[in-house]
Amino acid sequence: MKNFDINEDPHRRFNPLLNEWVLVSPHRAKRPWQGQNETISAETLPKYDPTCYLCPGNVRANGSNNPAYDSSYVFENDFAAMKQDEIIFEEDIKHTFFKAKPEQGISRVVCFSPRHDLTLPEMELKAIETIIKTWQKEYTDLGNIKYINHVQIFENKGSVMGCSNPHPHGQIWAQSSLPTQVEKTQLSLKSYFDKNHTTLLEDYVKAELKAGTRIVIENDHFVALVPFWAIWPYETMIVSKRAVNKITNFTAEEVTAYARILKQLTVKYDNLFSTSFPYSSGIHQSPTDGLEHPEWHFHMHFYPPLLRSATVKKFMVGYEMLGESQRDITPEKSAEILRQQPEIHYKDAVN
Amino acid sequence: MKNFDINEDPHRRFNPLLNEWVLVSPHRAKRPWQGQNETISAETLPKYDPTCYLCPGNVRANGSNNPAYDSSYVFENDFAAMKQDEIIFEEDIKHTFFKAKPEQGISRVVCFSPRHDLTLPEMELKAIETIIKTWQKEYTDLGNIKYINHVQIFENKGSVMGCSNPHPHGQIWAQSSLPTQVEKTQLSLKSYFDKNHTTLLEDYVKAELKAGTRIVIENDHFVALVPFWAIWPYETMIVSKRAVNKITNFTAEEVTAYARILKQLTVKYDNLFSTSFPYSSGIHQSPTDGLEHPEWHFHMHFYPPLLRSATVKKFMVGYEMLGESQRDITPEKSAEILRQQPEIHYKDAVN
Ligand SMILES: O=P(O)(O)O[C@H]1O[C@H](CO)[C@@H](O)[C@H](O)[C@H]1O
Ligand SMILES: O=P(O)(O)O[C@H]1O[C@H](CO)[C@@H](O)[C@H](O)[C@H]1O
Repeated sequence: MKNFDINEDPHRRFNPLLNEWVLVSPHRAKRPWQGQNETISAETLPKYDPTCYLCPGNVRANGSNNPAYDSSYVFENDFAAMKQDEIIFEEDIKHTFFKAKPEQGISRVVCFSPRHDLTLPEMELKAIETIIKTWQKEYTDLGNIKYINHVQIFENKGSVMGCSNPHPHGQIWAQSSLPTQVEKTQLSLKSYFDKNHTTLLEDYVKAELKAGTRIVIENDHFVALVPFWAIWPYETMIVSKRAVNKITNFTAEEVTAYARILKQLTVKYDNLFSTSFPYSSGIHQSPTDGLEHPEWHFHMHFYPPLLRSATVKKFMVGYEMLGESQRDITPEKSAEILRQQPEIHYKDAVN
Repeated sequence: MKNFDINEDPHRRFNPLLNEWVLVSPHRAKRPWQGQNETISAETLPKYDPTCYLCPGNVRANGSNNPAYDSSYVFENDFAAMKQDEIIFEEDIKHTFFKAKPEQGISRVVCFSPRHDLTLPEMELKAIETIIKTWQKEYTDLGNIKYINHVQIFENKGSVMGCSNPHPHGQIWAQSSLPTQVEKTQLSLKSYFDKNHTTLLEDYVKAELKAGTRIVIENDHFVALVPFWAIWPYETMIVSKRAVNKITNFTAEEVTAYARILKQLTVKYDNLFSTSFPYSSGIHQSPTDGLEHPEWHFHMHFYPPLLRSATVKKFMVGYEMLGESQRDITPEKSAEILRQQPEIHYKDAVN
């Protein structure tokens, strides 16, 4: 019998946002790897690619032309997962097992820059601020549509994350229902707020700042940290210090601080394995259903798959799909490694 | 305004096992693909590979030698995610956000065959029966250990599913807690059983057999179907017709029928894209916590990632991680395509 050592012993951690447990196996980081290697393209991208359907002026998949845009640029997804059509539907309550209902929605693509080769970590702060302002505008415009109750802003970065075009871009899927993960999060946030009259994330950020061990970056208005319950090896979350429930409620100063921490975090990510670091990221914030939602607290998740190098990722497969998410390296160790990364992008570093 | 057509219109479906919704976008199957292609190894594997740490007689990662086994063979995982050590632990109830507890467990590897090149669909029925009997023995032995309350039997097949060695093998992770997905499933099964005095899956299978559209294979004792709420393009589930709550309760005839449907399903999978079809699969059944669990009903999930061809998979990324699982092709269409696959393995087919 030995005393529990969270840095050494297999254990489970609790995720209070999703209300579920995660398996952590610190000792397993030493496992040798003979499995699949991801291919990374070493080629440098051109500033403009005549065959890219996102570059300014080019023809898109639906035949229309992109304008000669010079900052960020938004258009409707040509292969949207949802449609705007209103559908007549009568629920068949006889069906215990075959429950289905139509879903209305809008999908948009947000090009981050006219430059084909410029990802977030390499962009100017001002250009990142423009992206944030674009997100604000889309959240407002889409959220104001009567049947839209949720606006999901996200980015798939890198081909390993299913991104089909290297031109830096994100997406927005706005829809009538709260998606499953958002609904779960809302349940947790609401039950915490009803009990404590503060947001769960306000108190969590305070506790994390006090602990210190999982903080990656802190500025006056935001914190980037590896959540105590992170499942991906270098998963992080950007959280506002103030309990702001949606992106449109940030002050000008907060927008600038958000742009800064976004750049700093993604620079550290790129520096970690000297590669354009793949991830899926996305913002969780108040639904647009017209209610107040004081329980919501702005946060942005980063789910990056890489584990050991630019080519070896963590696989969330058999045990993880059937049992629960499992990680090999502790969140504390990951935060330490990210903290140590330089703030200058490796491509700009003079050796 | 148009009437809802489940084969054409975007909609959400409800998964009664996990108690959550899934987004279905039937019209999106026509989306062009310029993203990542998986590499598939066309090379034929040797029957014996002197460098493989799973082949009979070879040296393993921990330095010990495999015996000259001639059917299936089980050993302790050299890089187990859990350990058997008993850990002293006092819960710190002050921690609202930093909840963790030690987890005890055992991980084993199950080699399916001495042959380095023989996957399930290519094995003799008798050899598949032997694997099932091995699973029964492991479920009993591990389940009898006092601190083991759950035994997760699973397989990661193919490098795209994180499998690090092509020698056909599965794994077993046995542990003291119910993993997250199992606990969710148990909640749903129990609430259904308490209300209806039949298992959810017994009634579901009856409803599916009546509907017919999602059935892939049926024999006297088992059904292989694409669940109404499937998230992966060709996801399936093998369910026993009889409400049996664990693998050790099958009759000899049922074991044979299970081996047969396992072979038939995996042959159809291989034939779909004329490739060794990757998937993660695993058995959900009664916990081994000493309670009765009449609500549990044996089923085996198959989560295969391929979407369009042997090299293009479905990515569960940005929207799926932050929002909810999304699929492009309807479960009914997938079931139809799988049903149409020949029962003879493409490698054995004489053209
Ligand atoms: O144990 P293996 O085969 O080395 O590892 C594989 O399966 C495990 C269980 O699903 C996963 O945690 C790993 O990410 C995966 O690579
Ligand atoms: O919309 P895209 O970029 O073509 O597609 C990508 O992102 C979507 C949203 O996360 C996923 O459903 C797709 O599987 C992925 O390839």
